Amino acid sequence: MTILKNENGSSLVAGGAGFIGTQLVAKLLDEGHDVIVVDNFSRGQRSYLAPHVDNLRLQVVEADLADRQQCERAFSIAAQRGRISEVWHLAANSDIPAGVVDADVDLKDTFLTTAELLRCMKMRGIRTLFFASSSAIYGDLGDQALHEDIGPLLPISNYGAMKLASEALISAAAESHLERVCLFRFPNVVGVPATHGVILDFIRKLKNSEELLTVLGNGTQRKAYLHVSDLVAAMLWVRSKTDTPKVLPINVGPVDEGVYVSWIAEQVVARVAPNARIDFGAGNRGWVGDVPRFHYSTARLHAMGWKPSLGSEAAVLRAINEIASQEGF
Amino acid sequence: MTILKNENGSSLVAGGAGFIGTQLVAKLLDEGHDVIVVDNFSRGQRSYLAPHVDNLRLQVVEADLADRQQCERAFSIAAQRGRISEVWHLAANSDIPAGVVDADVDLKDTFLTTAELLRCMKMRGIRTLFFASSSAIYGDLGDQALHEDIGPLLPISNYGAMKLASEALISAAAESHLERVCLFRFPNVVGVPATHGVILDFIRKLKNSEELLTVLGNGTQRKAYLHVSDLVAAMLWVRSKTDTPKVLPINVGPVDEGVYVSWIAEQVVARVAPNARIDFGAGNRGWVGDVPRFHYSTARLHAMGWKPSLGSEAAVLRAINEIASQEGF
Repeated sequence: MTILKNENGSSLVAGGAGFIGTQLVAKLLDEGHDVIVVDNFSRGQRSYLAPHVDNLRLQVVEADLADRQQCERAFSIAAQRGRISEVWHLAANSDIPAGVVDADVDLKDTFLTTAELLRCMKMRGIRTLFFASSSAIYGDLGDQALHEDIGPLLPISNYGAMKLASEALISAAAESHLERVCLFRFPNVVGVPATHGVILDFIRKLKNSEELLTVLGNGTQRKAYLHVSDLVAAMLWVRSKTDTPKVLPINVGPVDEGVYVSWIAEQVVARVAPNARIDFGAGNRGWVGDVPRFHYSTARLHAMGWKPSLGSEAAVLRAINEIASQEGF
Repeated sequence: MTILKNENGSSLVAGGAGFIGTQLVAKLLDEGHDVIVVDNFSRGQRSYLAPHVDNLRLQVVEADLADRQQCERAFSIAAQRGRISEVWHLAANSDIPAGVVDADVDLKDTFLTTAELLRCMKMRGIRTLFFASSSAIYGDLGDQALHEDIGPLLPISNYGAMKLASEALISAAAESHLERVCLFRFPNVVGVPATHGVILDFIRKLKNSEELLTVLGNGTQRKAYLHVSDLVAAMLWVRSKTDTPKVLPINVGPVDEGVYVSWIAEQVVARVAPNARIDFGAGNRGWVGDVPRFHYSTARLHAMGWKPSLGSEAAVLRAINEIASQEGF
């Protein structure tokens, strides 16, 4: 086997076969980087990376990063290509309700992946980390604008808790062995390949019954949505700015205040099953750990000169089309 | 064996054989509570509980709470006495520098203990938790007054990170299965039985060499200190107030801004080795993860009507005497 060595170092993308990881990997390859994807394929899929199957700059390693030995093995394999210059950590549970039922899911997939990655980065002297955090770390702060310096941080889901725990451990690692850290706090992200989320849920429900769409909660939850293409563009934009603090927490999202779940339900119905009735539930939370609405401040990102190309409405509409196609509509 | 059942329920104290746990247990017993101490005796010691050896209201269970089976077993044993009405979680690594060297120490002792305790509390429907958190969750926010709602929370030690991670997981648990949570954010606490900390370090150094005391850092670190008796009193005070938010983060500390390490060194020398020379190091951090100074706001606690009986100076002087006696001076 020929191993292509890149003197500039390569990018290791944990969770690189998942929804967002796949899109990030495509961009990194476009930019000419060597990329090593590490994924346990629990939610990510090999087929998502099919477009790059002949690209010698991409290597895919199957490993569960929460497992110490598998994590070490993945770094060993990756290091055969030469220096690893940066790690993107996008490996996590993405099913928030599942994590509420069983705390072990986020403990392992969302948090222990971080702990083991940091351990391997320390051992190998890899000093740059881009982390996929989440707006879920903010918990439910009511109507306050959620900027990066707000407190108290009291998450209401195990997912949010284990993202905050990851940020905390990364922050401590920056004090001892990392040189550059970006904590990207993701909003709700939409697009393909969709593996979870409200749009996919609605479309699959309508696949089963084209006459009725049952919505958890009363539909008045309002959330901001970012299209995955904008999310990846924002991360690469921030990465290109090198005059940032050593540890940079940064909200990524659209500038608007989002759209209502009821509106999303109506748009999905219009696209895939125009005759379906919509039944709303009670209460303004879809599940334990669901935050009914929030005002997400992206002023820091905008001050760095970046703007999304799509607002929440446009992002959702584009994603509905993309996911409907993915699901055969 | 006769098992004494208490219809009011008993208090389970994780880490109850440690420095602070021992003092808390004494007070709970004084108040007439049944107490089950669970401790792995890695830092805590059976001898610390010797004064209560004949007290039928106290049961001691040896278990490592980070181990799932041992944690479950401990709760099974505790439940034989009847209902467990509250859990006090004081089990943690207390050696911050050790946790910087090896992240596994705090991952296991400070964080996984929390995860496993919460799991057992959920299984058994125990809904009240008092948690020993730490000012270390605040990281280094410079000269800002550290109140409970401040952000961003970027800890600089693995200890602080795993305390914040614990708070986050507890906060999420409050959304699903806990009814009452106090997150006591401890300052530097002094007193006996001393197992760690700056005073004990200095006294032990002077035990080895009564002519020279070498201090890490230049001595200009300034910190607030609370005597352990005041800390326990504050926690019991807050516990007695039931009109608090479901999840209450609360700083516990003195009202003053603390004392300098150089002053502590001088007082220790004066007490145990008056002829010793003091050699200061360089820099204003004793170790990686040490925060040089902070202004700790205890306004929330004071608004609840509690005040410490000793300020930082008096607390340190009393503790120097107590620890000197403990060490045979």
